[in-house]
Amino acid sequence: MHIRLQRNAGVPIVKQIYQEIADRIRSGLLEEGALLPSVRTLSKQLNVSPMTTVRAYNQLESDGYIVREQGKGTFVKRTEKREEKQKRRLKSQEWQLSIPDYLPRAQYWRQQQLFQTDNLKLPLSVASIHPSLLPQQEFNREVQKLLQNDSTPLFQYGPIEGDLEFRKAAANYLSSRNLSLKPEEILVTNGSQQAIDLIARCFVGQGDVVVTEAPTYSTAIDVFRERGATIIPIPVDQEGMRIDSLITLCDTHPPKVIYTIPDYQNPTGAVMSPRRRSQLLEIAQVCQSVIVEDDPWSETSFTETAPAPIKAQDQEGHVVYIKGFSKILSPGCRVGAAAASGRLMDRLVAAKANADLGSPLLTQRAVASFIRSPQMPKHIKRLKTALKKRRNKVIELLSNYAPQHVTWTVPSGGINIWITLPGTINADELVYEAKKESLSFLPGSSCYPGQPEFHHLRISYSYLEENQLELGIRILCHILSSSSAGTIATRFPVF
Amino acid sequence: MHIRLQRNAGVPIVKQIYQEIADRIRSGLLEEGALLPSVRTLSKQLNVSPMTTVRAYNQLESDGYIVREQGKGTFVKRTEKREEKQKRRLKSQEWQLSIPDYLPRAQYWRQQQLFQTDNLKLPLSVASIHPSLLPQQEFNREVQKLLQNDSTPLFQYGPIEGDLEFRKAAANYLSSRNLSLKPEEILVTNGSQQAIDLIARCFVGQGDVVVTEAPTYSTAIDVFRERGATIIPIPVDQEGMRIDSLITLCDTHPPKVIYTIPDYQNPTGAVMSPRRRSQLLEIAQVCQSVIVEDDPWSETSFTETAPAPIKAQDQEGHVVYIKGFSKILSPGCRVGAAAASGRLMDRLVAAKANADLGSPLLTQRAVASFIRSPQMPKHIKRLKTALKKRRNKVIELLSNYAPQHVTWTVPSGGINIWITLPGTINADELVYEAKKESLSFLPGSSCYPGQPEFHHLRISYSYLEENQLELGIRILCHILSSSSAGTIATRFPVF
Repeated sequence: MHIRLQRNAGVPIVKQIYQEIADRIRSGLLEEGALLPSVRTLSKQLNVSPMTTVRAYNQLESDGYIVREQGKGTFVKRTEKREEKQKRRLKSQEWQLSIPDYLPRAQYWRQQQLFQTDNLKLPLSVASIHPSLLPQQEFNREVQKLLQNDSTPLFQYGPIEGDLEFRKAAANYLSSRNLSLKPEEILVTNGSQQAIDLIARCFVGQGDVVVTEAPTYSTAIDVFRERGATIIPIPVDQEGMRIDSLITLCDTHPPKVIYTIPDYQNPTGAVMSPRRRSQLLEIAQVCQSVIVEDDPWSETSFTETAPAPIKAQDQEGHVVYIKGFSKILSPGCRVGAAAASGRLMDRLVAAKANADLGSPLLTQRAVASFIRSPQMPKHIKRLKTALKKRRNKVIELLSNYAPQHVTWTVPSGGINIWITLPGTINADELVYEAKKESLSFLPGSSCYPGQPEFHHLRISYSYLEENQLELGIRILCHILSSSSAGTIATRFPVF
Repeated sequence: MHIRLQRNAGVPIVKQIYQEIADRIRSGLLEEGALLPSVRTLSKQLNVSPMTTVRAYNQLESDGYIVREQGKGTFVKRTEKREEKQKRRLKSQEWQLSIPDYLPRAQYWRQQQLFQTDNLKLPLSVASIHPSLLPQQEFNREVQKLLQNDSTPLFQYGPIEGDLEFRKAAANYLSSRNLSLKPEEILVTNGSQQAIDLIARCFVGQGDVVVTEAPTYSTAIDVFRERGATIIPIPVDQEGMRIDSLITLCDTHPPKVIYTIPDYQNPTGAVMSPRRRSQLLEIAQVCQSVIVEDDPWSETSFTETAPAPIKAQDQEGHVVYIKGFSKILSPGCRVGAAAASGRLMDRLVAAKANADLGSPLLTQRAVASFIRSPQMPKHIKRLKTALKKRRNKVIELLSNYAPQHVTWTVPSGGINIWITLPGTINADELVYEAKKESLSFLPGSSCYPGQPEFHHLRISYSYLEENQLELGIRILCHILSSSSAGTIATRFPVF
């Protein structure tokens, strides 16, 4: 465990120590029962007064993360709720426990371990689209046709920045979103996630200010935390990120990177208004910030099309626009495109070389040939209809069966619904109730970069079969009803 | 440009500043003609005395990296030798020049930009295997068969750590190398490069000591430099890394990570002796280090098989063994396997989630089905024969045509030959002579983590067509002969 403190970040040191340790526990990176360093050792290591460490430990103890055992030391609390089997460690490998590592948060990994969604019947936590809604036959045929004509995609390295065919196809595909991009402004990535990661490793370091929506995409938080960023959460309302809150911050903490999902935001479903998009770009220009505009599913709009992306107005190269093709087309290819220009693009390409030398040619060519075929718009049309139908159904079910005082968003695109519980109910705890019913949802707490809120959860209506979806929502409502009747302890470190 | 200094690293601060700037210039990350910060600004930023900065700038100037223009400032030297077109920067994007970034070295990217090997007839710099030596028909057929039976590989996310089919196949494949691995000890990566990167982001941070062979694989250096490591180069002889040199370091600088390519080392072709393998493991046990054992092509042994990997003796989980399938099977799939255990494996999987959520299922399934088929051993047998023939031919040509005082290694496997020129000849400069002849090689200077040596170069005999290979070596020898006749300036910052 390597704790990095930021002396001039404006965040109290006690809080920083608390956050670093709490995040590790919530991610399972510090395991239950693990011995923490003594107050003396940690204080010395971090060059802080023992009183500072004591205060951080006190807070961790009172929030239920750690326990102190007289004469033995301080340990990560063991919770009966955790069902994962404790891995047996070989005694000969115990030295590994003492290697300092640089990963403070890994919620995606944690969720995979906890949910093991393959074994669940009702995995409402999975934010991807069921294969039956994807163009299985058409895309498969396209890939086979590609290989019948040519073995090149299997036997050549592609250029670091991506195959020209793919870059052309992606630039052309994005023209339908009012983006006028040259192929050389497109970088191929292994899904959107890698694009976020590349931006972070180029431009985010210890103490740099990163602004995100709160709540936001959990695995983006993982990345920025890994870089040692000072992450400042900005609330979201129906028009997206609250730009007014952001403006007040700019004087004291000008952001270096602003991460946003303007269309059908993950997890709230909010769509950023055109006015706020312009304001955000203005802020980036004033503060010399990089905007990361993440677009996993803007194509799925249920009503009119989504507003033009921020990137469409970007004359000065502030925006890196990320289009992922994993959700809407092929999870098995993991292909994304990052649109950037100038020196930003140069740096991203150089970082891509360090990360993996370049993406597989096979998957790039496969996606390229499909997205420029007439099959793609047909697929998107079918997908929108299907998702809208599912959303309607889920909203209807929630209206009929959800207990009082539970509220939810009604997204106009995308795949997620954000559910808010009465403040007394802790969604983290309900995870275990749900698991008994073979159901999963995403506890909202994992979507906050700083102090989490525990009374939200996210469900996705895109991954279950249609008949299972109804069952899932009914069971979820039943769980919510039971819990609101009982008393639930306050905070509990599950995520 | 974000310069990170290590106050207690035992490396003088002047040298650290020099290295940070020189690396950026050699990688093209600081472009020709770029204005450097003034002595005053840089000193203030780094919190060092102006004299320290002046001394670093003086050294950079005398080594030909920068020029000072009276009353104007300090600039990266413009060199006529550089042929790349200066990119025109849009005036509106000039703000991008001032964003501090965290990439100090990117030699792979630089080489791609400089060589543009697609346009060269004789790209001896390319260390990959020509498609005609790879099982084009058989592998292509296998992938098509896979897709005919099942669309899953295109439409499902795989688990973060990799598809179970792939992990089983890789564990089984590696059993032929005396490795007894469980599938859960295998992590899928996007080629070996990502495995190196994941290890670095988990375990290497600012000032941590990383040991590598010198010379070594250039893009591994890029990664460790990006993490801010103190890289300590250890010389290589015919038996691989000089363990005696390493031992003397252990007291003062116990390594956290040791990176090695024991079989047909890149670039020298050396094979680490079994004795040194055992010694290296002992050192790791004593110093509590992680060994990164990179194995791109141990299968290609021309004589007897390569010695058992270090991982085969590893009882305590010190070794992360990396098997890449890009070189020997499918560059277009970019699939690698990292074998690790215990907490090391947990951390790597968590980092993999942050990096890209997991590798494409399509490419994993493709490689899995081929490596467990009887086609794989047949392919490897053919490949060995073909590479040996090529090596013999190149050695014969070098013996006949290389000028006096030029020496080379004779590898017993792999794809590279390391050529040493008389100390007066600078291989970096010959790059431009070669390019005029449509030929490329890798200047050896990029393979050193610290002070580079300029009188080596690496060629690969695996990528050119056979008839082109002869032409390439003859032309290379001609270039070497011409150069040894003339006078060549001393150091020159090309790489």
